[in-house]
Amino acid sequence: MKTILSFVILFFLALGLNADNGHQLWLRSKSSVPVQVICKKSSETLAIAKQELQQAWQGEAGQTVRLELIRDKQIAGDGFRLSAEGIQATTESGILYGVYELLRRQQTGKKIGEELVNPTWEHRLLNHWDNLDGTVERGYAGLSIFWRAGNDSLAVTEEDLKLWEEYARANASIGINGSVLNNVNASPKILSAAYLSRVKAIADVLRPYGIKAYLSINFASSMVIGGLSTADPLNAEVVDWWKAKAKEIYTLIPDFGGFLVKANSEGQPGPQDFGRNHVDGANLLADALKPHGGLVMWRAFVYNPSDEDRAKQAYNEFMPFDGQFRDNVIIQVKNGPIDFQPREPFSPLFGAMKQTSVMAELQVTQEYLGHSVHLVFLAPMWEEFLHSETWQEGEGSTVARTTDGSLFEQKHTAIAGVANIGLDDNWCGHDFAQANWYAFGRQAWDSSLSSEQIADEWLKLTFNQPAPEEMDAETVLPMEWDLNFLKPVKQMMLNSHEAAVDYMMPLGLHHIFAAHHHYGPGPWWAPKGMRKDWTPPYYHQADTEGIGFDRTASGSDAVSQYHEPLKAHFSNPETCPEALLLWFHHLPWDYQMKNGRTLWDELCYRYDHGVQQVRQFQKIWDQAERYVDPEIFGRVQHKLREQSLNAVEWKDACLLYFQQFSQRAIPYDLERPLNNLDDLIEKDERTIRAYE
Amino acid sequence: MKTILSFVILFFLALGLNADNGHQLWLRSKSSVPVQVICKKSSETLAIAKQELQQAWQGEAGQTVRLELIRDKQIAGDGFRLSAEGIQATTESGILYGVYELLRRQQTGKKIGEELVNPTWEHRLLNHWDNLDGTVERGYAGLSIFWRAGNDSLAVTEEDLKLWEEYARANASIGINGSVLNNVNASPKILSAAYLSRVKAIADVLRPYGIKAYLSINFASSMVIGGLSTADPLNAEVVDWWKAKAKEIYTLIPDFGGFLVKANSEGQPGPQDFGRNHVDGANLLADALKPHGGLVMWRAFVYNPSDEDRAKQAYNEFMPFDGQFRDNVIIQVKNGPIDFQPREPFSPLFGAMKQTSVMAELQVTQEYLGHSVHLVFLAPMWEEFLHSETWQEGEGSTVARTTDGSLFEQKHTAIAGVANIGLDDNWCGHDFAQANWYAFGRQAWDSSLSSEQIADEWLKLTFNQPAPEEMDAETVLPMEWDLNFLKPVKQMMLNSHEAAVDYMMPLGLHHIFAAHHHYGPGPWWAPKGMRKDWTPPYYHQADTEGIGFDRTASGSDAVSQYHEPLKAHFSNPETCPEALLLWFHHLPWDYQMKNGRTLWDELCYRYDHGVQQVRQFQKIWDQAERYVDPEIFGRVQHKLREQSLNAVEWKDACLLYFQQFSQRAIPYDLERPLNNLDDLIEKDERTIRAYE
Repeated sequence: MKTILSFVILFFLALGLNADNGHQLWLRSKSSVPVQVICKKSSETLAIAKQELQQAWQGEAGQTVRLELIRDKQIAGDGFRLSAEGIQATTESGILYGVYELLRRQQTGKKIGEELVNPTWEHRLLNHWDNLDGTVERGYAGLSIFWRAGNDSLAVTEEDLKLWEEYARANASIGINGSVLNNVNASPKILSAAYLSRVKAIADVLRPYGIKAYLSINFASSMVIGGLSTADPLNAEVVDWWKAKAKEIYTLIPDFGGFLVKANSEGQPGPQDFGRNHVDGANLLADALKPHGGLVMWRAFVYNPSDEDRAKQAYNEFMPFDGQFRDNVIIQVKNGPIDFQPREPFSPLFGAMKQTSVMAELQVTQEYLGHSVHLVFLAPMWEEFLHSETWQEGEGSTVARTTDGSLFEQKHTAIAGVANIGLDDNWCGHDFAQANWYAFGRQAWDSSLSSEQIADEWLKLTFNQPAPEEMDAETVLPMEWDLNFLKPVKQMMLNSHEAAVDYMMPLGLHHIFAAHHHYGPGPWWAPKGMRKDWTPPYYHQADTEGIGFDRTASGSDAVSQYHEPLKAHFSNPETCPEALLLWFHHLPWDYQMKNGRTLWDELCYRYDHGVQQVRQFQKIWDQAERYVDPEIFGRVQHKLREQSLNAVEWKDACLLYFQQFSQRAIPYDLERPLNNLDDLIEKDERTIRAYE
Repeated sequence: MKTILSFVILFFLALGLNADNGHQLWLRSKSSVPVQVICKKSSETLAIAKQELQQAWQGEAGQTVRLELIRDKQIAGDGFRLSAEGIQATTESGILYGVYELLRRQQTGKKIGEELVNPTWEHRLLNHWDNLDGTVERGYAGLSIFWRAGNDSLAVTEEDLKLWEEYARANASIGINGSVLNNVNASPKILSAAYLSRVKAIADVLRPYGIKAYLSINFASSMVIGGLSTADPLNAEVVDWWKAKAKEIYTLIPDFGGFLVKANSEGQPGPQDFGRNHVDGANLLADALKPHGGLVMWRAFVYNPSDEDRAKQAYNEFMPFDGQFRDNVIIQVKNGPIDFQPREPFSPLFGAMKQTSVMAELQVTQEYLGHSVHLVFLAPMWEEFLHSETWQEGEGSTVARTTDGSLFEQKHTAIAGVANIGLDDNWCGHDFAQANWYAFGRQAWDSSLSSEQIADEWLKLTFNQPAPEEMDAETVLPMEWDLNFLKPVKQMMLNSHEAAVDYMMPLGLHHIFAAHHHYGPGPWWAPKGMRKDWTPPYYHQADTEGIGFDRTASGSDAVSQYHEPLKAHFSNPETCPEALLLWFHHLPWDYQMKNGRTLWDELCYRYDHGVQQVRQFQKIWDQAERYVDPEIFGRVQHKLREQSLNAVEWKDACLLYFQQFSQRAIPYDLERPLNNLDDLIEKDERTIRAYE
């Protein structure tokens, strides 16, 4: 027993010495190399820029770096010119972004030449689905960093200020310049004076880092907190109420960003409740904000339990309004036509609304991708989405270009990501989920960045080569670190999204999640009386004939919402990408895939491949042990095991469930199921009961 | 939905048509080939013999078979002479056993020549650990077939009689000739008149099948139900009480077999409570039974929470009494010195007690081998045990020979197996657990039978080739059945015990089970104040130096209880069989195994191999689908999945727990753990709380 005890003590000592709770994110680099920073102007923002340079400089010792505010029409908004001598920009934010870019290049070993760097989108926002009671909808990293429950919930503490500044700095370092501070399922209370004073406190901390505060608003606010009898957007009192409210906000927060609105969607109030439409609603708010320079981001996430394919509804509802919105309205559209599934085709609204500003909403928090348990690097999914060809203006009409102002006249361009941030020490629950926050910022800044480059940057910044004295025994040489850590771990990240698609819903399957929590599998879930578009069988349509949702002309004809030649490609299973096959087609179990396998066999192989991939990730990570802080190593190892077990559950649940219809054997060269279907269903039902 | 419904209906129809609940055991064969049976005598037993022949004859149509009772000194007890013409025996039971052997040979395609067949042991018993309230200690196949709770618990019903007869027939068919009807942790009530009348009813059903009824008795019965103030075996009143009780029993059941006794063991009363010893106790009962021809089976399963190695205690306690027991006492010794572990060396009492009848107690019910969930064919374990060389009388002194009368003068020889039988439709919970009942009977009859032959027989009898009209689509040809079903499934059975050893406790590890239920892993379990010989750390002795129980001269010196050259072999890790290495040695983690691996690595490979083996079993079974009744197929498939998941839990729990001590990596070419140690411990604690 003595030996065990002393081992345990040694173990905790070791932890204490090396403990890394992940709170520093990708901003770990410290340096003692002196640098001379010259900047004629001074301001809070510029002071930050100087300080960042001084504490992380890794260039030549004693070098001079000039930060210059200039006039230059080639520099757009937050952009900058980078050179070995320094940074030129037209705004203080531009200087700051230039500094972070310069430091990043030093730390990741990239060249610094003469270069003009402009962001892809003007507004690059995080949407926080944070409730005013401190909980976070679809948040898997603890409670809200902005809101809390209890009597003192509105008092601003030193800890708040410190945390908000850390948050602002992290965002600024990757180019994020806007934060929506509360959930789109918005409490009207957010617009009350008491809450606005806390919003002001947050905005004051964000401002020097170039970040604007935005709020989600409840469309019925004029009734609930305004005391009016209506929220009808054409009612004069309502119009006045919103104008006054806007003025009140801008008095507190002169650079307030604007409103994000979820209206007439999943039970939220909206203009339709008063016989009006989305245009009436959005323009009401746009008019109120316009004098102050504010924006309205109006969400297109609408669908009703009608007979119409859910995937078609947003398009059907919004297309007729194209061209009718004010120029400070942006329609915020989720990347896919359903809801942040592991894989979706792009929403057909991208590129189709040619006279309206449209922005993409991505989900950084992993609602449908294993929460903060599964290691899933999302950059490849977003890269696939942003580079999707819409054909709306001929070849090259990628989704990114339909929203960044390069194809259409857009007064404002923007992109949003639903944040994965909470009070957890490491911000994101999973240490690798930090990479998704990082990647969102980087892709929002530059849509042409490859996932590979982003992963490379993030790994180098986050797991920077430890100093020799921090290593346990042997010195890790840079070459060895590259070969044994960077290369395999990067590959793991790059493969991780496809792996999750494979073990969750390959070949275009979608929304076969367990009810409520959207974590595990639930392809069977369809309680009596439940609206069918909330049940997995609606989406997978499995029967003894086959599987998949027929969205061709013989089915819901959702394909017709896509521009040719996409429509034709998607319509024909021979030309439809296999990754989207069951999204667009209901096909027989023995449909022959391009590799010669039957559809059923291919489904089995895909699920199995997903499982084997995660097991491979475990091996990669375990072999990386000596290069990683032991606490981080342990946390990630722990979660990879859970992911691995979950992957098997996904595979077993889906294959055994679908096998009831296919009545075919799982190919015998594949690992057999480890779980019984009835056990998995029972486990699912227990979880559902806990939610209900 | 309609398609699902009709599919479900079809599914249940299909089940209904083919349903096989496994109740027929290995006695499925029916035949309409006529046979002429000639037997001069008539009796209940001979009538059964004739009927069995007539309903299952697969020889030449109209052939004549003679059943003859003869005098022949070469035929021992239940033995018989077999020939193509018929069966000769000295007892009616002998005739019946001959008939079952003849039919078995027909059904399994074996030759029938002139042959003398004698059983290895005179008494071949099942011990039922059935409590009088109907529960079964360590039973995993439902409630007791003999006892039940409630007001009518002693009323004998038609269902009882039918079930007991089926039970008797199954036993007779494999040569079992004795049944201990109640738990060794015995209620004194069993000897009350009310219970004895039910015992008589059971005995009356068993008798025509050649099976004697035995009872486990509580040593304090003379006090609890006899009203005496003592159970002192030397007290005259106690002596008289037992004599009277014996007479009472034999009046009801003239062929009553005798008593099984667990005394001064795990809290049961015994002679030591009155200052006497095992000899006094056993001889008391032996004297009472002697006039009626009854036996006493006195268990040697004794150990106390002393400083002495538990593995040594039974030997230490019983050896001094060698030669002092009456000739109708048999000392019943568990196969290993601890307690029915997945693998143990044989108990050193075998062969050491040279002037006392000794019998082996095997455990058919899988207390420590996955209950009725894991597919573990026990014949190879028993074969290994029975053929273990004790060296007590030179080479060839196998355990079997130390108990079967061929080495020592024994008035009576016997072997016992703790039954795995309950009220479940299929008797044993797991369809393949029936094979263990079968194997026990067959090995008890003939200790020279190989596991391979027993598995071959059982598979042919249990899964006899279905008639073409029963097959779903295509005719299964015998050759194909042999190749695709019999061969792989037999191999699975033969590998199954070693697989379980590997994923549970390889290399001689033992008793690292979870508390109470002995199902899952619990190497960590050692609550404060618990007697240490009931905790796994006592058995595995893992520390930062190494692992294993030192039973050499430098440790507990249990090796000295074995006869040379075994003692020397076991003492030296270089000559100790690796399968028992950690049973006898505490070795450093980097101890070099014969294959060049370190001990730690080898442990990892063994655990992993166990897991991979079960996955292989799943593949074998899934590929056997078309040859097996769908209901049986589904039941076994279901349990194999659970076993497979359990195997991973075993591996993960043990390797991650031991890794805390070894501080070495699991070799990177092995599949990584799927479970986290803390999750497994928490799960274990939840289960333990449910027991406490």
